[in-house]
Amino acid sequence: MMIVVMKSQAKMGNVSAVIARIEDAGFRVHLSEGDERTIIGVIGDGRPLDRDQLERMPGVERCVPILEPFKLASKNFNPSGTSFPIGDHEVGKKEVLIIAGPCSVESRSQIIETAHAVKEAGAHVLRGGAFKPRTSPYSFQGLGEEGLEYLADAREETGLPIITEVMEPALVPLVCQYADVLQIGARNMQNYALLHAVGKAQHPVMLKRGMSSLMKEWLMCAEYILSHGNTRVMLCERGIRTFESYTRNTFDINAIPVIKELSHLPIIADPSHATGKWEYVAAAAKASIAAGADGLIIEVHPQPDIALSDGVQSLKPKRFAQLVSELKAIAEAVGRELRAQPG
Amino acid sequence: MMIVVMKSQAKMGNVSAVIARIEDAGFRVHLSEGDERTIIGVIGDGRPLDRDQLERMPGVERCVPILEPFKLASKNFNPSGTSFPIGDHEVGKKEVLIIAGPCSVESRSQIIETAHAVKEAGAHVLRGGAFKPRTSPYSFQGLGEEGLEYLADAREETGLPIITEVMEPALVPLVCQYADVLQIGARNMQNYALLHAVGKAQHPVMLKRGMSSLMKEWLMCAEYILSHGNTRVMLCERGIRTFESYTRNTFDINAIPVIKELSHLPIIADPSHATGKWEYVAAAAKASIAAGADGLIIEVHPQPDIALSDGVQSLKPKRFAQLVSELKAIAEAVGRELRAQPG
Amino acid sequence: MMIVVMKSQAKMGNVSAVIARIEDAGFRVHLSEGDERTIIGVIGDGRPLDRDQLERMPGVERCVPILEPFKLASKNFNPSGTSFPIGDHEVGKKEVLIIAGPCSVESRSQIIETAHAVKEAGAHVLRGGAFKPRTSPYSFQGLGEEGLEYLADAREETGLPIITEVMEPALVPLVCQYADVLQIGARNMQNYALLHAVGKAQHPVMLKRGMSSLMKEWLMCAEYILSHGNTRVMLCERGIRTFESYTRNTFDINAIPVIKELSHLPIIADPSHATGKWEYVAAAAKASIAAGADGLIIEVHPQPDIALSDGVQSLKPKRFAQLVSELKAIAEAVGRELRAQPG
Amino acid sequence: MMIVVMKSQAKMGNVSAVIARIEDAGFRVHLSEGDERTIIGVIGDGRPLDRDQLERMPGVERCVPILEPFKLASKNFNPSGTSFPIGDHEVGKKEVLIIAGPCSVESRSQIIETAHAVKEAGAHVLRGGAFKPRTSPYSFQGLGEEGLEYLADAREETGLPIITEVMEPALVPLVCQYADVLQIGARNMQNYALLHAVGKAQHPVMLKRGMSSLMKEWLMCAEYILSHGNTRVMLCERGIRTFESYTRNTFDINAIPVIKELSHLPIIADPSHATGKWEYVAAAAKASIAAGADGLIIEVHPQPDIALSDGVQSLKPKRFAQLVSELKAIAEAVGRELRAQPG
Repeated sequence: MMIVVMKSQAKMGNVSAVIARIEDAGFRVHLSEGDERTIIGVIGDGRPLDRDQLERMPGVERCVPILEPFKLASKNFNPSGTSFPIGDHEVGKKEVLIIAGPCSVESRSQIIETAHAVKEAGAHVLRGGAFKPRTSPYSFQGLGEEGLEYLADAREETGLPIITEVMEPALVPLVCQYADVLQIGARNMQNYALLHAVGKAQHPVMLKRGMSSLMKEWLMCAEYILSHGNTRVMLCERGIRTFESYTRNTFDINAIPVIKELSHLPIIADPSHATGKWEYVAAAAKASIAAGADGLIIEVHPQPDIALSDGVQSLKPKRFAQLVSELKAIAEAVGRELRAQPG
Repeated sequence: MMIVVMKSQAKMGNVSAVIARIEDAGFRVHLSEGDERTIIGVIGDGRPLDRDQLERMPGVERCVPILEPFKLASKNFNPSGTSFPIGDHEVGKKEVLIIAGPCSVESRSQIIETAHAVKEAGAHVLRGGAFKPRTSPYSFQGLGEEGLEYLADAREETGLPIITEVMEPALVPLVCQYADVLQIGARNMQNYALLHAVGKAQHPVMLKRGMSSLMKEWLMCAEYILSHGNTRVMLCERGIRTFESYTRNTFDINAIPVIKELSHLPIIADPSHATGKWEYVAAAAKASIAAGADGLIIEVHPQPDIALSDGVQSLKPKRFAQLVSELKAIAEAVGRELRAQPG
Repeated sequence: MMIVVMKSQAKMGNVSAVIARIEDAGFRVHLSEGDERTIIGVIGDGRPLDRDQLERMPGVERCVPILEPFKLASKNFNPSGTSFPIGDHEVGKKEVLIIAGPCSVESRSQIIETAHAVKEAGAHVLRGGAFKPRTSPYSFQGLGEEGLEYLADAREETGLPIITEVMEPALVPLVCQYADVLQIGARNMQNYALLHAVGKAQHPVMLKRGMSSLMKEWLMCAEYILSHGNTRVMLCERGIRTFESYTRNTFDINAIPVIKELSHLPIIADPSHATGKWEYVAAAAKASIAAGADGLIIEVHPQPDIALSDGVQSLKPKRFAQLVSELKAIAEAVGRELRAQPG
Repeated sequence: MMIVVMKSQAKMGNVSAVIARIEDAGFRVHLSEGDERTIIGVIGDGRPLDRDQLERMPGVERCVPILEPFKLASKNFNPSGTSFPIGDHEVGKKEVLIIAGPCSVESRSQIIETAHAVKEAGAHVLRGGAFKPRTSPYSFQGLGEEGLEYLADAREETGLPIITEVMEPALVPLVCQYADVLQIGARNMQNYALLHAVGKAQHPVMLKRGMSSLMKEWLMCAEYILSHGNTRVMLCERGIRTFESYTRNTFDINAIPVIKELSHLPIIADPSHATGKWEYVAAAAKASIAAGADGLIIEVHPQPDIALSDGVQSLKPKRFAQLVSELKAIAEAVGRELRAQPG
């Protein structure tokens, strides 16, 4: 459904041509002729009608879409909200999900040590990157499949399910063999070949928001995955890029209530990337839960000062444990639950 | 203190000239000559040294300032934090301050009715605009002094102190006669003549962040006020302008922990402007308290659908009362206090 | 004129209430009832109808304004374009206007020397700041009235008309005594008291775009000035604030053709602030003329490395003279004229 | 090379630990001990030293990198500038390269008709998308390999070399069979698997800037391609995302002189995406050439009002021909050449 606003100087022939185009596509028309302008409402079901095409027709000033472009990701599609299990926990229900771990898997001992530490501190899922998107081709790019194996070892030892990033379509089958949840990173939010591949994989997915993506574009990317019948999708707000450079990103906390209103998908917050400095992670994490997030993903590293990536924004395990206990109080204050021990 | 990085092709004469300039200004120099470049550290106290000037000297690649440009607004100036009383409440201490009221004062009965309603709901301070900055010269511009009188009447009836915006230097004395706290709006954050005027007025001030202002610029504007010896200044984060247009502004919640680290001044959050839609105000308000804000300013209107401004983002009194009780639980979860009844 | 889109679940009573509200304000209504939604067109002349108010009414999803909010600044108001004389030159016609000079007036000799240099190089108007908006209260704030006197002396000596910034309403009469054109700076674009004051002054004005202002907001600020019957207004694009920090600002060159389409007011480009580095000023200046700008304002300083402000982005007179001759060729390539010698 | 700024309260042991870390990595240290702070210069060649790691060490305030992170893309690597042939034309030399064609290949006749039209108008290279990145999974996604075949047919008929987008690593070999130049779209600028694949392909590449990418990040992405020894890389500025929504993007024209200074790679401008409306394309195209761009890529469609994508920003062939002749004059005014007929 759409509204076509004609220019004030549009001629009757222009209006007729627009109406013919709309009716040809199988829609009905509601005409409003004012003193200043004519407005044409497009109503009903028809073949996709291209807004750009209509805007190029003579006499048309602009087209205003009325309905949202996303369907499967829309709240209306599942008003009670989507939830699905990750390990012993259910994301999207009353419980707040805590995902934690290092930015990168650096060695077998590092990831196993961290897994034990975050489990003790109350985390429910282990994060860790085996394939890393790095700004420089000369930076550490991750351990690759070796890293996936270490993650699997850490799961074996602790029972924590694992989430890890997949960066290219060809690697989706491999990563699915190891990961409980696939992560699509911010840089790849609009990598459509990758979205199709994870859609087809029928594996749980966490889709991060692109650093300059509108919330509606983000939901359209979820739509790409959902269109393959893969409904186990959760979104992750990780901060957007703005003029403010004191923090690594600007945490768009508004996204939490907005996504809750527009969509049925669970929403996770990433206070580590959203701030970029460990000093601010606790404040951002608490704010996320207070605003209604379904979970958090937090970078934790046993020795941040020798981390191969993102050490500046990683918490030490002890501070993370302290934070989880503080988050528990906030969760309860907003009617949620944070189970510090896995079920 | 500053570091001057010379270009790799800089000549010895270039380096000498820079050193001479720095020493002329009364600073000392620490020289680091590397294989690739020479770096000059500027140390000590001297006359103000202009970074732009140095960057224009031959052979200079760039200058990197090391110390923050703000002094009186800096945390170091008062590490234990500034607090001051507003009515029976102290802002900047343990207690969370709640400011509420309509965007504009529209009539005597409207402001008095709202004052009673927000007081009953738990507010500590009444807000209301008498002079309104409006995008269009054809929109309602506020009642002016008449509005100030109605605000004073509302204070008389309820005991609530009042905060209201002042938009030009010439009106500072008038607004001081009525208001307990002066508000500097986002559009006027860098209206230096106004900052000087409120600095001289020695009246409590709430300085809103400009919609595209860096946090450091904001603190420099506070510095303008503080430089007059007026120390009763609180800051207000009200959202910044970004590419995301679904919400009126992007609430930069990171600003709360950042300001707490950089400065000793109290920080208030404005979830009404930061979201622009009443549906998201509660989530943003809760997030603010969880992140450590010292208070909130919230738009409340008895009949938002006939409000002369900002109706879309105003809460009704009943919903506001509900929110205050929810905020109380969050405040306690983070070790703060929200007194729902004035002292 | 506006379109009100009702929610899909809106009730008949909601629709009636909206219609009643619109008709009460003196407008007529065009009703479009679709299967999915009802749409209400608002037509004709009536009392100002507040979009926010309508959006708060039960059952209303959103309101879409159809006509631009600016009237006097709109192209329709004067389709052939506004022009007015500044000294011997006419801005807004075929000729390209060149304004040049230092950021700040620093001394009598500095401004007179620069005035001679820029005149010889082909400039038509002399710029120079006597009252300077500075980020820090500890930076040089300008010479004040003394600076205005030196500007007048420079005009006396060279015949160049002068443009200088006014920062507060109380100083408008003083600055009008000296300046041929008043400049409103970017930080003060929405300083409405100042806009009213320069509107009333009936003096030529150059209104800079705020660093995060939408083009429509900028035109609304011009509307404030025009609403006083002061029609000698020109706009100045000086770059906007974005995430890109390599340059001081991002030069929104699109603004030139857009303003030419939306408004009848002349548009000047400021390549010095738009780039922030003298190395890029020539490229940005040429681009401006190629895109259709009516003039340029360029910072020129005889000794940029000792300039008290903006030295990094100032050209030396020799380089400026070279640029003017290059600009002449571009101006001719786009059918404009650049007179290098005053009339 | 880097500078480490210690905190004012850092202890001697902190400084020693930082020095030890730096020396362990094979670098030398220059120590500057001031009254307020200690500053450590990192000099020489060593193993990659992670800025994040250093910033996490106790007592460190921050690290300031001095050298640019890109090497092969840096101007220093090839100060005289890179150029390479595309068909009969050489990009990166005196000549301005004109690329034109439709957003999408829609049919054999459409692309052949357009190819003839743009050739006659003076274009040197034909553009056309066979694989299209679309915001919605329900929009036209391109004709795929069939589209590539039609492009090859158009080249056969007109002699124009072709440029087309490749969206996933697995399709690089296929697209190389047909295309003279591979295009990496803005959404895929940081799709590192794709950058590696086109790097290995040793095929000419045009790398578009991501819509919220810093210029330095863009050059790092070029570095990914160059690191495979593929030196035929040109960059394309296509506008960035900002708060201004009147145009589709904000054309960052500053990028043209900045890239010319930082890098040796040719830079192309895309005025169609940079503005998003055909009305503004001519102004932006002229500005690009005036600012020093090495070429333009412009969307041209014989019937924009039935184009399957981007019709709003496409020129008709007649208007494009007019534009090319106007560009010729600008090119000459800045000492460049625009050959309207292929060699």
